[in-house]
Amino acid sequence: MAGIGFMGRVHSFAWKNAASLFGTDDIDLVAVAGGPDDSEEAVRSFARRWGWSTPVYRVQDLIDAPVDVIDVCTPNDSHEFISVAALRAGRHVLCEKPMSNSLGGAERMAAAASAAAERGVHASIGFVYRRVPAVTLAKQLMDQGELGDVLLVSARFLQDVRLDPHRPDTWRASKKVAGSGVIGDLGAHLVDLVAHLTGEMPTMSSTMTAPYPRRGAHDPAVLSSETEDIAVCSGSLASGALVEMRMSRVAVSRKVDLGIDVYGSRGRISFELQRPGELVFVQGADGLQGVVERTILVTERTHPYQEMWWEPGQPVGYGSAHVHQVGDFAAAIRAGRAPTPSFEDGLRVQRVLERMIVDGQG
Amino acid sequence: MAGIGFMGRVHSFAWKNAASLFGTDDIDLVAVAGGPDDSEEAVRSFARRWGWSTPVYRVQDLIDAPVDVIDVCTPNDSHEFISVAALRAGRHVLCEKPMSNSLGGAERMAAAASAAAERGVHASIGFVYRRVPAVTLAKQLMDQGELGDVLLVSARFLQDVRLDPHRPDTWRASKKVAGSGVIGDLGAHLVDLVAHLTGEMPTMSSTMTAPYPRRGAHDPAVLSSETEDIAVCSGSLASGALVEMRMSRVAVSRKVDLGIDVYGSRGRISFELQRPGELVFVQGADGLQGVVERTILVTERTHPYQEMWWEPGQPVGYGSAHVHQVGDFAAAIRAGRAPTPSFEDGLRVQRVLERMIVDGQG
Amino acid sequence: MAGIGFMGRVHSFAWKNAASLFGTDDIDLVAVAGGPDDSEEAVRSFARRWGWSTPVYRVQDLIDAPVDVIDVCTPNDSHEFISVAALRAGRHVLCEKPMSNSLGGAERMAAAASAAAERGVHASIGFVYRRVPAVTLAKQLMDQGELGDVLLVSARFLQDVRLDPHRPDTWRASKKVAGSGVIGDLGAHLVDLVAHLTGEMPTMSSTMTAPYPRRGAHDPAVLSSETEDIAVCSGSLASGALVEMRMSRVAVSRKVDLGIDVYGSRGRISFELQRPGELVFVQGADGLQGVVERTILVTERTHPYQEMWWEPGQPVGYGSAHVHQVGDFAAAIRAGRAPTPSFEDGLRVQRVLERMIVDGQG
Amino acid sequence: MAGIGFMGRVHSFAWKNAASLFGTDDIDLVAVAGGPDDSEEAVRSFARRWGWSTPVYRVQDLIDAPVDVIDVCTPNDSHEFISVAALRAGRHVLCEKPMSNSLGGAERMAAAASAAAERGVHASIGFVYRRVPAVTLAKQLMDQGELGDVLLVSARFLQDVRLDPHRPDTWRASKKVAGSGVIGDLGAHLVDLVAHLTGEMPTMSSTMTAPYPRRGAHDPAVLSSETEDIAVCSGSLASGALVEMRMSRVAVSRKVDLGIDVYGSRGRISFELQRPGELVFVQGADGLQGVVERTILVTERTHPYQEMWWEPGQPVGYGSAHVHQVGDFAAAIRAGRAPTPSFEDGLRVQRVLERMIVDGQG
Repeated sequence: MAGIGFMGRVHSFAWKNAASLFGTDDIDLVAVAGGPDDSEEAVRSFARRWGWSTPVYRVQDLIDAPVDVIDVCTPNDSHEFISVAALRAGRHVLCEKPMSNSLGGAERMAAAASAAAERGVHASIGFVYRRVPAVTLAKQLMDQGELGDVLLVSARFLQDVRLDPHRPDTWRASKKVAGSGVIGDLGAHLVDLVAHLTGEMPTMSSTMTAPYPRRGAHDPAVLSSETEDIAVCSGSLASGALVEMRMSRVAVSRKVDLGIDVYGSRGRISFELQRPGELVFVQGADGLQGVVERTILVTERTHPYQEMWWEPGQPVGYGSAHVHQVGDFAAAIRAGRAPTPSFEDGLRVQRVLERMIVDGQG
Repeated sequence: MAGIGFMGRVHSFAWKNAASLFGTDDIDLVAVAGGPDDSEEAVRSFARRWGWSTPVYRVQDLIDAPVDVIDVCTPNDSHEFISVAALRAGRHVLCEKPMSNSLGGAERMAAAASAAAERGVHASIGFVYRRVPAVTLAKQLMDQGELGDVLLVSARFLQDVRLDPHRPDTWRASKKVAGSGVIGDLGAHLVDLVAHLTGEMPTMSSTMTAPYPRRGAHDPAVLSSETEDIAVCSGSLASGALVEMRMSRVAVSRKVDLGIDVYGSRGRISFELQRPGELVFVQGADGLQGVVERTILVTERTHPYQEMWWEPGQPVGYGSAHVHQVGDFAAAIRAGRAPTPSFEDGLRVQRVLERMIVDGQG
Repeated sequence: MAGIGFMGRVHSFAWKNAASLFGTDDIDLVAVAGGPDDSEEAVRSFARRWGWSTPVYRVQDLIDAPVDVIDVCTPNDSHEFISVAALRAGRHVLCEKPMSNSLGGAERMAAAASAAAERGVHASIGFVYRRVPAVTLAKQLMDQGELGDVLLVSARFLQDVRLDPHRPDTWRASKKVAGSGVIGDLGAHLVDLVAHLTGEMPTMSSTMTAPYPRRGAHDPAVLSSETEDIAVCSGSLASGALVEMRMSRVAVSRKVDLGIDVYGSRGRISFELQRPGELVFVQGADGLQGVVERTILVTERTHPYQEMWWEPGQPVGYGSAHVHQVGDFAAAIRAGRAPTPSFEDGLRVQRVLERMIVDGQG
Repeated sequence: MAGIGFMGRVHSFAWKNAASLFGTDDIDLVAVAGGPDDSEEAVRSFARRWGWSTPVYRVQDLIDAPVDVIDVCTPNDSHEFISVAALRAGRHVLCEKPMSNSLGGAERMAAAASAAAERGVHASIGFVYRRVPAVTLAKQLMDQGELGDVLLVSARFLQDVRLDPHRPDTWRASKKVAGSGVIGDLGAHLVDLVAHLTGEMPTMSSTMTAPYPRRGAHDPAVLSSETEDIAVCSGSLASGALVEMRMSRVAVSRKVDLGIDVYGSRGRISFELQRPGELVFVQGADGLQGVVERTILVTERTHPYQEMWWEPGQPVGYGSAHVHQVGDFAAAIRAGRAPTPSFEDGLRVQRVLERMIVDGQG
């Protein structure tokens, strides 16, 4: 695995637990590498804590290590280099989103994945929210046609991370490293979720953005924002449905407020990540009782991924979606199947994001 | 009062109760007229039921009746004719929204109101949701600067009225009578609320719409929709804040789902009409406890309009906002003040709607 | 009507609106009397405000007035005297709960009602929460057997009225006038709701109570409480179901927190007054989706009392249940039927309360 | 560890992750034993899946294994035997609740723990809900006196496990193995939570119970219940506060519905396990805005246990409380401190349960 930041930590938790929970015995945590800014001691300490047997200090050493899979959790601007090198070296790749900071980068990654696939080497992009049980159940219901024709999709991803004057900016505020602001960071998840749930990649026709010039707690100078902090976007699906998205990282009191409502001609689905074990699913009028809001507690044994966890009613947390992601990835590799979503899927999302970024600058 | 449909009924309830609740004794229900399609018997029956002393059968008779105020609750396409005639005859006018089906009509109405005002005759437009206690409280908090700089406004108005195949279309589905679809019907309220709460009229730069071609329950023929049923819109305020609106009248299970979130640099306000007695108001981090979602139960005696109703904790219903509207209107007329919002305010909203309608057709 | 306090105000609102909403034309507001502590000016002012044509200043004058119905909204200790006199004088009586401060009083009232009924003169006790639309719908569902055998009933009524040091105590804190504390005031509603919904009068076997000795804002002396402020009670129905009730008037942040959950072998119903337009109704497992929490928005035209109010989705408020109560009462009287609940029902509730009060002192 | 059932699985997950999350490196998963009904193959398979290095097939072998700690996750009737033997052999013990099926058993266990403590060997009982972050935060707030004097505690634990006719009864339905029904299973948690949060062991004066005689799906014979399925209990704290508890394992649609409300003279705390990351904390009136319901999202770095998990806003799941439990246990052992809650605490809870069981049979 490459990367020992927050994502590295969550992915380590996921790899560490996937075998026990999925009931397999062929997952071993081998080598881990840090980024260019991480000290050797930090990498060693991280490896010890999470059970990686071999800390390495250069990405090339990671690629050369005797591993089957490389999981790329580094900042966006290194995704392309590591993924392409790993695929060429015959390693299966799971890469964090967004694929790349540029459309060109994403295209080169997809091309490398396509070439590798001919040799049975696979790549997948980490749109992890697909694996939240309620989202997976929503997808099942939509695939069964329970919503009729989709008419309107409304999605949001709101955080407050850049409001706090005491919290220093991370690489995500740097245009060079992150590529864009809230669009690449949060919008990427929304575009993937809309595409995943409806089966259609949205065309986002209009995007408006705003920066948030903030001040540091101890620094009267305004910290200018290099990237957009708020965006509102409208678009449509090929089938005619309208799509609305809004995203912010300066939304007071919103921590990880990811939500999506899909309105169809026959039913509606609503999900919000703050209540990851609940899915609202409503279908038309319910006899004399009129319209009834139905909330499904997604913890039954028959629900996605629940058999492996606890008893009905006992919710799983944020980390579990990552366990599902690496478990599904490993199962596909084990079976010789291509895991989903593919780098090609990631590229399609990137094309939508690119238009949003360009329009938002207009 | 002109109009004996649903709005006529609610306004009758409002006029009937305003004097008792506001504690005044100068409100008498005098004459009521129906629309061109209402029978004399229907008007008589309506008048008897709601306590209007004199049913009349032509609008001109209403204008000639010895009344101080004329309340216009007829379909949109007659607002201009009745309001202008009433103002010229020296009657104060309270007119339902939207002002008119055309920008020209709204301009003529505003001009008539302006001329009447010089004679001390006043006109007001019925944006009733301003008078829901939680919205009035939200406005107070925003006027006190509790939210800091406004960064993002997100508003929705979703209904399901055109989904039910058993429910025949009303005049609201007719382009000729209603002027537009969901934009004039529901969007008018959203534009007014955004303008009212923030103090700035939004510029809506992008609007996308979709019709909903539906089938009648007993009629295999598709009922083509003459007007838009869904719209998603994005725009901004002069101060730089982004504004997002979505509206639909084919949203499964949404009945009167009007909601608005205002995100500022220091706080957030969220309101939804389904819980009209609750206002969410959050301000930054709350010491060691982090971000705390605060829900205000807007039923204290110190809260807007609550002194006149029940005890703390006992919510009021939909009809009460109309009581507040006519009570406030009557109080302004009694005091010789111009009631708010004015026809000029209505015209400004109409200009925004006009752009949304035109863009939505593009 | 007797009584010009809070209940007098709500009942006036109810009588004033019942004819319009129920569509009848035989309800006239005639005479109103105050209590012994109300000045003549207060009664005159109240009558003028609410449209009572004749203010009277002695209860006997009210009984002598040419009215069909007398509505008793005075403090508890005068219920017996006024009701019995009114029934003897041939007036139908609607009396606020609880019937009386003593079991003997309630027995005399029930006897007077029984004697009057032989002359076609009827009496009813004002358990108004039966007429909240969601409760009426719950009763319909239970009568249809949708819950199977009832296993557990859990009910609460929590307020904070005696916590506020700035709010002076009313007659409700006086043992002499109110008879008991929270048991008679709030518990009466709970006992009636349990009996009404399940069709069985509960036997409450154990009651524990506590007073709340508080201090006035400007008065360092402790205001000793003459009556209980908190009570927890357990009991059962003849069918074997367990019943749990808790009530308080010193519950921080609870205003009118009346709630009831009924668990049956096949389904569950949950209601809370803070959201008077919502009823939760769940029935066992729902196929592959497991247990689904279903919330009914009780505003459809087919729902109880909704035809007369607004459009689906537009909730009614606290006052509406009182409109339903007097409208149903008037309809029964008009049809020569006995209105429900009867004084006999009230007496049965009083017997349960009596045991709770006695046990609570143990 | 002893026990390879559901609790064995959750505790394995906890031990497996505690070192990584707490940042220690001295936790190794050594031996695991099954119960008398588990096959050797089942134990081997469980050990392999969860990473226990040595499967053993007799409890004595577990006690003889070179371990520091023995975690007892077997059915209730073996808790005493294993715990006492382990303590005598110098192993620290973490034992699942309830301590024992009999008061005598619990007393012997507490005595053994007391004797072991003199040799520096410690025992703790697994009341895991103390370690849910929102409960831990509630405890902190109460210890700081934020609620004033406690006036009323209302607690519930409702499940539906015995309603499903397709779900066979487990050992929990057997009087011999489980000792009691819902009181020992769910009530034990409630009694501990009330005692933990308020710092006072409640005296439960009245308990009423009911069994639920159900039928199997394919078996027309009624499965008689040997133990109580529903209980309602009332009691008090030494300080005078009233305490109400209700519990059921036949509550339609309730899965793990554990909830507690603590009302004090100055504030209120409400928690429900279905939303484990949220704590409601209200304090009196909030200036002009009246009473404000405040919901704390318990995911800030400053909140209990959150530093080790994800980012603010990303909730943790059911398993995490077990991670906290074993992490806290290990930290105490490491430091030579007695972990909490002790067997003495468990015995005190058992005494309350004993009275509830006896009263409930009356």
